[in-house]
Amino acid sequence: MSITGRTRLMAIVGDPVAPLRSPALFNAAFARLGRDAVFIAFEVPAGELSAAWPGLTALRNLDGLVITMPHKEAVIPLLDALGPTAARTGTVNTVRRRAEGGWEGEMFDGEGFRDGLERAGHAVRGARILQVGCGAAGRAIAHALARAGAARLTLHDAAPGRAAILAASLEYPGLSAAAGDPDLRGHDIVVNATPLGLREGDPMPFDPAGLRPSQVVADVIPNPEVTPLIAAARAAGCATVTGRAMHEGQARLAAAYLGIEGWETPGV
Amino acid sequence: MSITGRTRLMAIVGDPVAPLRSPALFNAAFARLGRDAVFIAFEVPAGELSAAWPGLTALRNLDGLVITMPHKEAVIPLLDALGPTAARTGTVNTVRRRAEGGWEGEMFDGEGFRDGLERAGHAVRGARILQVGCGAAGRAIAHALARAGAARLTLHDAAPGRAAILAASLEYPGLSAAAGDPDLRGHDIVVNATPLGLREGDPMPFDPAGLRPSQVVADVIPNPEVTPLIAAARAAGCATVTGRAMHEGQARLAAAYLGIEGWETPGV
Repeated sequence: MSITGRTRLMAIVGDPVAPLRSPALFNAAFARLGRDAVFIAFEVPAGELSAAWPGLTALRNLDGLVITMPHKEAVIPLLDALGPTAARTGTVNTVRRRAEGGWEGEMFDGEGFRDGLERAGHAVRGARILQVGCGAAGRAIAHALARAGAARLTLHDAAPGRAAILAASLEYPGLSAAAGDPDLRGHDIVVNATPLGLREGDPMPFDPAGLRPSQVVADVIPNPEVTPLIAAARAAGCATVTGRAMHEGQARLAAAYLGIEGWETPGV
Repeated sequence: MSITGRTRLMAIVGDPVAPLRSPALFNAAFARLGRDAVFIAFEVPAGELSAAWPGLTALRNLDGLVITMPHKEAVIPLLDALGPTAARTGTVNTVRRRAEGGWEGEMFDGEGFRDGLERAGHAVRGARILQVGCGAAGRAIAHALARAGAARLTLHDAAPGRAAILAASLEYPGLSAAAGDPDLRGHDIVVNATPLGLREGDPMPFDPAGLRPSQVVADVIPNPEVTPLIAAARAAGCATVTGRAMHEGQARLAAAYLGIEGWETPGV
């Protein structure tokens, strides 16, 4: 990769940025596609995105952004248009320039997660799913699982009321959605949609003691790929889907939204 | 070069950015030094730097900026401290974070130019120099040539009064500085410090018809390296110093200011 004054820019905006995998993933794709572009990380602390936004807008060679924690909701009022999932979930993870000026955004965390789960061979249609974590990513994931035909969604969040509000918003035919305790029994798929596992020493998002080998455990944390939860699930004999699969699904969808043609190589 | 979320950022801010050589030069140095950093171009149009500044400041992994046309003067009020040459010339080409917050800047265009000229074997001390162009870079160059002991500086600029104002500001012992026509006669070194030659079809900064083989012609345009002026000077048998030499001198000094240790490899 040779960066010159002509090289176009894309970036991921978040904090912390050190564990992010997007730069490596996108730059590998740019190299493979022979695209004169570079993907970097912009470390913007919580609360500073609106101050940073006019500056990002002024960078004329910046074509698109992936938005991650803690900005997935904060970016909404800075945008001029929202895609359908962004509008439904109140969260955005990818933004691009509009031809008429300004920015538009869409949310692919949920569809990326579902895509990763299904590519790993785990059907969502008809499944009974326990999801722990109902923040920005969790909302998008719950909507994507509901849209893909989940039969039951049990939602839990440490913040009181959050799970119930999300459950009430999930009006999909054939779906039973409710807030509940993180009780593993009666669920086919168990999802961690909290950030727990990102930092060393984090507690478990839920007690994995009751896991059975027939259950699938999916995590949203892409780095470390094997979180303590994933390790415990594997020890219990469960099939697992790591955050890396979700992240690759997100990146695939974000890349398409950002006009990066040919992201998938044949056979992958 | 492998870019991850941990990779530190530096950038050059200007418009146009396509012809800029700094990204290639700095990234080659980072690769050579094994430094986990990347140098990109930020295309910011004239008049938008102050709007962009809070955004650039919010990027916590952005450690330093090289400032080029058209922002070398516009950046001054955005800074919290100026180095001595920046204060004297009212122009800045390199900024870095201050330990106490905010940014400080210094101007290396002039010293970079002088460094390139002297490394090419052309002594400034005692020289009679004609300089065409008294803008931001021109002011810095005139001060650097004066400080290095030039005997005479004849200054010319298409904008009325600009050359006389600059000449009046050059109070250095043993220097005779004055505004004048771009008359090549009686000068040892002739300098183009205008942007003419950057864009195809630009007129010559001055008529090269009277050049003699004993004269040295130096240009500030780094890309294309061989401007029409440099080509005409070579055809007339003159020694030439291209903008690339100046640019490498600038980059060397900017790199030191930005804390990039070991920029020069042995034997270079």
